[in-house]
Amino acid sequence: MPSIKHLECSRCGHTASASVPQNVCPQCAGSYYVRYDLSAAKGLAARDRVTVDYPRSTGMWRYREVLPEVTPVSLGEGWTPMLPSRRYGKVWVKEEGANPTGTFKARGMAMAISMAKHLGIRKVAAPSAGNAGGAMAAYAAAAGMEAHIFMPKDVPLSNQVECHIHGAHLTLVDGLISDCGRIVAERKDAEGWFDMSTLKEPYRIEGKKTMGYELVEQLGWRYPAAVFYPTGGGVGMIGMWKAFEEMEELGWVSGPRPKMIAVQAAGCAPITVAYEAGEKASVMYPNAQTFASGLRVPKPYGDYLILDIVRASGGTVVSRTDDQIFDALSDWGRNEGLLLSPEGASSMAAYDYLIETGFLKPDDEVVLFNTGSGNKYTDVISQRLGLG
Amino acid sequence: MPSIKHLECSRCGHTASASVPQNVCPQCAGSYYVRYDLSAAKGLAARDRVTVDYPRSTGMWRYREVLPEVTPVSLGEGWTPMLPSRRYGKVWVKEEGANPTGTFKARGMAMAISMAKHLGIRKVAAPSAGNAGGAMAAYAAAAGMEAHIFMPKDVPLSNQVECHIHGAHLTLVDGLISDCGRIVAERKDAEGWFDMSTLKEPYRIEGKKTMGYELVEQLGWRYPAAVFYPTGGGVGMIGMWKAFEEMEELGWVSGPRPKMIAVQAAGCAPITVAYEAGEKASVMYPNAQTFASGLRVPKPYGDYLILDIVRASGGTVVSRTDDQIFDALSDWGRNEGLLLSPEGASSMAAYDYLIETGFLKPDDEVVLFNTGSGNKYTDVISQRLGLG
Repeated sequence: MPSIKHLECSRCGHTASASVPQNVCPQCAGSYYVRYDLSAAKGLAARDRVTVDYPRSTGMWRYREVLPEVTPVSLGEGWTPMLPSRRYGKVWVKEEGANPTGTFKARGMAMAISMAKHLGIRKVAAPSAGNAGGAMAAYAAAAGMEAHIFMPKDVPLSNQVECHIHGAHLTLVDGLISDCGRIVAERKDAEGWFDMSTLKEPYRIEGKKTMGYELVEQLGWRYPAAVFYPTGGGVGMIGMWKAFEEMEELGWVSGPRPKMIAVQAAGCAPITVAYEAGEKASVMYPNAQTFASGLRVPKPYGDYLILDIVRASGGTVVSRTDDQIFDALSDWGRNEGLLLSPEGASSMAAYDYLIETGFLKPDDEVVLFNTGSGNKYTDVISQRLGLG
Repeated sequence: MPSIKHLECSRCGHTASASVPQNVCPQCAGSYYVRYDLSAAKGLAARDRVTVDYPRSTGMWRYREVLPEVTPVSLGEGWTPMLPSRRYGKVWVKEEGANPTGTFKARGMAMAISMAKHLGIRKVAAPSAGNAGGAMAAYAAAAGMEAHIFMPKDVPLSNQVECHIHGAHLTLVDGLISDCGRIVAERKDAEGWFDMSTLKEPYRIEGKKTMGYELVEQLGWRYPAAVFYPTGGGVGMIGMWKAFEEMEELGWVSGPRPKMIAVQAAGCAPITVAYEAGEKASVMYPNAQTFASGLRVPKPYGDYLILDIVRASGGTVVSRTDDQIFDALSDWGRNEGLLLSPEGASSMAAYDYLIETGFLKPDDEVVLFNTGSGNKYTDVISQRLGLG
């Protein structure tokens, strides 16, 4: 495992030590990136160790060459299936529902909780649109930590069950994730909580960046033409972009990076609005509402990073209505055998749209992220189906 | 991939051809085992191909040396995490919730649907306690087949949602899986359905046997002292035992086989009753009832095989009440970060019991199967928690 050089602010470049707990940059409140000395991982021999060493974890810890040196608090996260579509020749589905707790959030929390434990933290707190809270509850339980979670009161029932079963302290809030975030910010100092909010600590990105390593490895150390990513907080996309940067530094991959497609729900589309207006950051999206609860983030903390990445990659931002998203969920259920999450299904809806508009061609190789298992949305989907 | 020699009745030894669709033995109605020419897979060089060849699927198809030659209809099933307990030094959890459709049923259905497609079958039917039906719906959708599924009307909502989303024809029955099975048997000929009922076609065992290969490989090609298996239909246990037999023939593993522990719910314990009475088969369990819906199988078709295996292995049968099972589910949620299915939690409850009785010692290495993700039981668990 590589040594960490320092943490580096993603906005102003300020650096800080990684040997003590850190949240955001004290100068500009930007999110920190972890910067490593990656010299030992350079070249194809190091890359080969990832793929051929045995026994090696088949989870995300296979990428230990580029992850912080820490004892993993692991529940088996990562190395999820990359499934070929049965209908579209060059379409892959990255099936993140196979993770512990049923979503990609497990990757970020596995890493962040591992590091928090390493740094001696005993109490963690976070606002959540649902799945990050469930994942934090699970990993905190595995690490023997106290977890305090604040979620909108209308999150899927599965997310509430997770918090209860894992012994977390759950507060349901009559509001959105932004309201939950305010409560954490107000109470954390008095309570002695470490703030695990999205992009307010440096290691959730490090866990999620493994999606970028995996998709490139699973395609044979090649980039696809485009990556579709359902974008609530957007850390998955930010993490993957960091992975691509690292992999190029290491000589593990080359060629043009994929177009990054940020997908949002039409009922909560702050990035879409900012992108179309040519802005560098978003503003609070009014009356945010969508059944894709993970996309209900009215002002992502990392908006400036997401917008940068989309533009630098030559990608775009797409928002789809709940009806369009549910049509895609039904279509892929019936014709591909996948039970997507609503967030995941937004990728498929956006793909159809960008083929229709000609932004992408049918022979462009693309990876569509299904960020979570549809099994976490039984109540939401059964309502839409008119069951029960 | 090896060639199939023939199908062999597990009760009377009668053989039949595998080149046409087959259900059960026409002489005695016993279940068929698939018998292969395994000569090409003998020895450690062949075993090494499983572990070191790259690229090789990391799913259950990594065991192609011992599976039927067929084009897989795959959704990414198998090669699930083997997680060490955080509290008990020699306890492993085999986390089958990471499978597509969230349970181990995916393994059996992936193989059975692949073979059905290979043999030209277009319409499949099955009774189900819930998860097998959901898995059949998913794989049939992926294969472009028509699926007819019959389930008790009080199965978890997630199982109903799966059938609807995957376009299966679902009938909810006011009764148990045995009543559902009767309907399939009565209607299948007129409707042209191929009967995919548990142990009434030969290939679901072949998919599930990969759990046996995996657990041995994940322990470093060694047997544990005991394997705990939640036993409704019991095919997982039957499949694993067949795997152990094959692996020994191949020279891939040696030493005493694990004690096989069949775990049941006290509200539906036909195998427990038969085992304690010294019988070779079970009788219909009256008024079967348990919140572990997958264990609600009042007379397993393969009862004679399960009882044989438990006895041959020096194992035992344990049944636990719903309260004991839910206590184990809560305990592992709070202290290990796992959201077990109720069926899976019965393994943990049974482990505690067999340590208490002295049947096993704390330093015996054991594998506890969590057969599915707790996320499929949100409605059931939230009721128990008094939520919603």
